[in-house]
Amino acid sequence: MLSERPLRIGLIASIAHRTPPRGYGPWEQVASTLAEGLTALGHEVTLFGTADSVTAARLHAEAPTGYEEGPGVDAKVFGGLHIAAAFERAAEFDVLSNQFDFLPLTYSRLVPTPVVTTIHGFSSEAILPVYRAYDDIAHYVAISDADRHPDLGYAATIHHGIELDRFTYRPGPGEHLLFLGRIHPDKGTHLAVEVARRAGLPLVIAGIVQDEDYFRDLVAPHLGRPGVSYAGPVGPAERDRLLGSAIALLHLIDFAEPFGLSVVEALATGTPVIARPLGSMPEIIRPGRTGFLVDDTDAAVAAVGRVGSLSRRDCRADVEARFTAERMVADYARLFSAVVAGGPAATSRSSSRGTSTSANRTEASLAP
Amino acid sequence: MLSERPLRIGLIASIAHRTPPRGYGPWEQVASTLAEGLTALGHEVTLFGTADSVTAARLHAEAPTGYEEGPGVDAKVFGGLHIAAAFERAAEFDVLSNQFDFLPLTYSRLVPTPVVTTIHGFSSEAILPVYRAYDDIAHYVAISDADRHPDLGYAATIHHGIELDRFTYRPGPGEHLLFLGRIHPDKGTHLAVEVARRAGLPLVIAGIVQDEDYFRDLVAPHLGRPGVSYAGPVGPAERDRLLGSAIALLHLIDFAEPFGLSVVEALATGTPVIARPLGSMPEIIRPGRTGFLVDDTDAAVAAVGRVGSLSRRDCRADVEARFTAERMVADYARLFSAVVAGGPAATSRSSSRGTSTSANRTEASLAP
Repeated sequence: MLSERPLRIGLIASIAHRTPPRGYGPWEQVASTLAEGLTALGHEVTLFGTADSVTAARLHAEAPTGYEEGPGVDAKVFGGLHIAAAFERAAEFDVLSNQFDFLPLTYSRLVPTPVVTTIHGFSSEAILPVYRAYDDIAHYVAISDADRHPDLGYAATIHHGIELDRFTYRPGPGEHLLFLGRIHPDKGTHLAVEVARRAGLPLVIAGIVQDEDYFRDLVAPHLGRPGVSYAGPVGPAERDRLLGSAIALLHLIDFAEPFGLSVVEALATGTPVIARPLGSMPEIIRPGRTGFLVDDTDAAVAAVGRVGSLSRRDCRADVEARFTAERMVADYARLFSAVVAGGPAATSRSSSRGTSTSANRTEASLAP
Repeated sequence: MLSERPLRIGLIASIAHRTPPRGYGPWEQVASTLAEGLTALGHEVTLFGTADSVTAARLHAEAPTGYEEGPGVDAKVFGGLHIAAAFERAAEFDVLSNQFDFLPLTYSRLVPTPVVTTIHGFSSEAILPVYRAYDDIAHYVAISDADRHPDLGYAATIHHGIELDRFTYRPGPGEHLLFLGRIHPDKGTHLAVEVARRAGLPLVIAGIVQDEDYFRDLVAPHLGRPGVSYAGPVGPAERDRLLGSAIALLHLIDFAEPFGLSVVEALATGTPVIARPLGSMPEIIRPGRTGFLVDDTDAAVAAVGRVGSLSRRDCRADVEARFTAERMVADYARLFSAVVAGGPAATSRSSSRGTSTSANRTEASLAP
């Protein structure tokens, strides 16, 4: 299984939630997929996560549970203990994989172990000073080319992958349009409502309410209408069922989304995606094959009318080719090996856009 | 001036405010007093603070200004960069003095330089896990014996000291009662109002409004009454004037205050203090000589009646003996030297309460 010597990897997960998350928690989901996949490949992985995490890797926990989940878990207190624990054990690892935002970078000059930091997006420009300050020694991974910041050097872009067996392919044709995600203006829940109404199709809305005012003012008033329903936050089984029974996922975002796990999950069940062409969407969706990129609601309504012409089989196939856990894990394993060997970060930093990535490479080889 | 070899000291100030603070900022005030005093003694001090700090020490700044003062200064971002900078330069110092709460502890195992952490109080029980986790290598300084936590080992208790020339001794007799501090239920502003009314004396209230609801409901309604006035937050000159012209400082706190800088400042101007006997108050105030400790408002009103019998000269003299910047700086210098020499932390940790402190020693030698 393993072509090279096993690596000793310390993987620093986010501790907002347990790993893997019970519900919402994309950072913890990626950490889990990586920890399980790298362990399955034969690497020696120590997952730094919450004590209630579930993993085949070795688990090191400082926090009893996620700071978004346990009222007694202070984010600053347990965040500090959690990060420090990984760096205090740094000599035991060939490489540290940081999946927990920018604070671990501030410990990284104090240990000789290389640290590969996956940037899961920039919550605001305010956090850039830390990324800039550690750019000289950091090995940054972008989760999409669109999310690369021009001020930073990157070791690679690695698109997320999903565990395919968690998403059931359904041949369709689908029963409803679907909104799945945080209910927040960024995600365009209200635009999905408008498009479904104009298309004359039922809409299911699912996800956590992140912006209460927005939900109350622009979403809730429509829930009484025939054909518009709110499923609340959904667990894995219900998520799989809702995705697979959809005609299309309406992903009418209003921000440069660094990556869209739900988009890939929809495609894995065979459901095409109608999205605005912001952030990573043009990298994930193949227009006219796995969905449509639309500028406004008029175009979105038109796209709903054409979505039946797409092959659900093609949607699944594209995920199998480009967005599997195995591909993501292999990309990270290759990068970790290169970094441990003194590898490509320095090269990538001297170029403007870093090394090519396996996701890009795969994309190129599959291009029509 | 310097009896031993100069120490190379990295002093990590809080960056909530600049050092010294323009207004509120007790942690930054103590850091400033230490940095200036140690520098004056001939030590090589590098102050890690905001870029707008003012110091005779060398200044290392990551944050342009305090995160409570500049809207673009993110506390987590600049807190991390600021702490990391000190630890990345640790090899340049014989000792690091941490005046910035618990987060620096989480970097402390990654460098060989000893770190002396002054615990400026426990904002909540939630922060104890960090102090416990580093108890084995930390050198903790309590700012009063009352603030020592039974779970922790301490290297010393060192009471704060103030720069005496900033506070003018006034022989009195005083014109008004004074409340000076954050306007918050903890500080008992409303009790000061009640006591002044029952004593038939004017009251001046000064300080920042920390609890808006409390101010509106329990303080503001009294401000229209003759004899009750609100001076707002006050700068150094006005603070000195208000303290020196007071009959007594009313410090009717409702929490275990770790130390009360304003109490010592009042005494320095000759003004006695009437306080509840909580936290550090019994260590600072000598009942019947420099003020009174009172359990309730009845006792406080009675104490106001007796305060004229106290000698304002004795109040000033007690500060000169126990609470000067010089004494505090000498205590820290002695502790730093001992720690650098492999000093007393281990000893103190094996006992239940740490070594005796110079403040205690001074206290003992002055006791009547």
